[in-house]
Amino acid sequence: MIDASRKPPLIPESMSQRPAILFANDAFYTAFATGDLAAMDAVWARRAPVCCIHPGWTALNDRDAIMESWRGILGAPGGAGRQNQGPGGGRRQTAAIRCVRPEVFLLGDVAWVACYEILPNGNLIATNIFVPEDGAWRMVHHHAGPAPPVDAGDEADTPRVQ
Amino acid sequence: MIDASRKPPLIPESMSQRPAILFANDAFYTAFATGDLAAMDAVWARRAPVCCIHPGWTALNDRDAIMESWRGILGAPGGAGRQNQGPGGGRRQTAAIRCVRPEVFLLGDVAWVACYEILPNGNLIATNIFVPEDGAWRMVHHHAGPAPPVDAGDEADTPRVQ
Repeated sequence: MIDASRKPPLIPESMSQRPAILFANDAFYTAFATGDLAAMDAVWARRAPVCCIHPGWTALNDRDAIMESWRGILGAPGGAGRQNQGPGGGRRQTAAIRCVRPEVFLLGDVAWVACYEILPNGNLIATNIFVPEDGAWRMVHHHAGPAPPVDAGDEADTPRVQ
Repeated sequence: MIDASRKPPLIPESMSQRPAILFANDAFYTAFATGDLAAMDAVWARRAPVCCIHPGWTALNDRDAIMESWRGILGAPGGAGRQNQGPGGGRRQTAAIRCVRPEVFLLGDVAWVACYEILPNGNLIATNIFVPEDGAWRMVHHHAGPAPPVDAGDEADTPRVQ
């Protein structure tokens, strides 16, 4: 169903992109941890279609709705942060979220990161997808859900690249 | 950090790829629903790095480990299917899973689908990423986690494309 003459996928990319992808992923968690809505807005793509799946929520596919969700999460009284509204999952507290064990995947103009989010009351695991836009990697997809306990030691912050 | 002279992202792709992407996504859920391990094996990419995040599990980043997990899930006695091992999330029953409301995203050689998984005892929401390999779209990433109730009527099966 796909022209087999297309270039083979997963041609090795410049390693130089991987730090930039991790930088974008870190920017997301820094915006989250600091409750910085403007920084969160800058993280997300402006032209590419976007999708955000907070733990236990339905998917948000509209950029304005996504930013409104972050406004509520980051601005919650007492920094309560993202509240799981679904049948399971965790609760995120602003200023207490930490990303560990990011795994970076890269193919052409799309990168994705699987990582754990360490929270005071448990862990989540996230899939974050990025595309280049205006000279930087911008988030187009975020999906977080429950995860079991993981080793969140300092060594665990070392990214693995695929 | 990225060469701004690169071609703009999200150049409109051939619409003809979208049915092929949905076909690949459907093949995953058909393999799941029918408990067909060989079909599930065929769904997943063989050369690209892969990652599978079952509900409440840690991430599996090794193809053999992923297939072993599916062997256990699809072959569970009584078709019990995927068991959530984490702090939340749902339980999946083989032969009772149904994908609804798939949303397709496509950029170059990478496609991703956000969709709901309808189960007898609740819903999950999934992020599925595909890349072309050997002439077809193959799954490289699956992440499922809890979701609230959604409209799973017949009309909801109509895919939306971004």
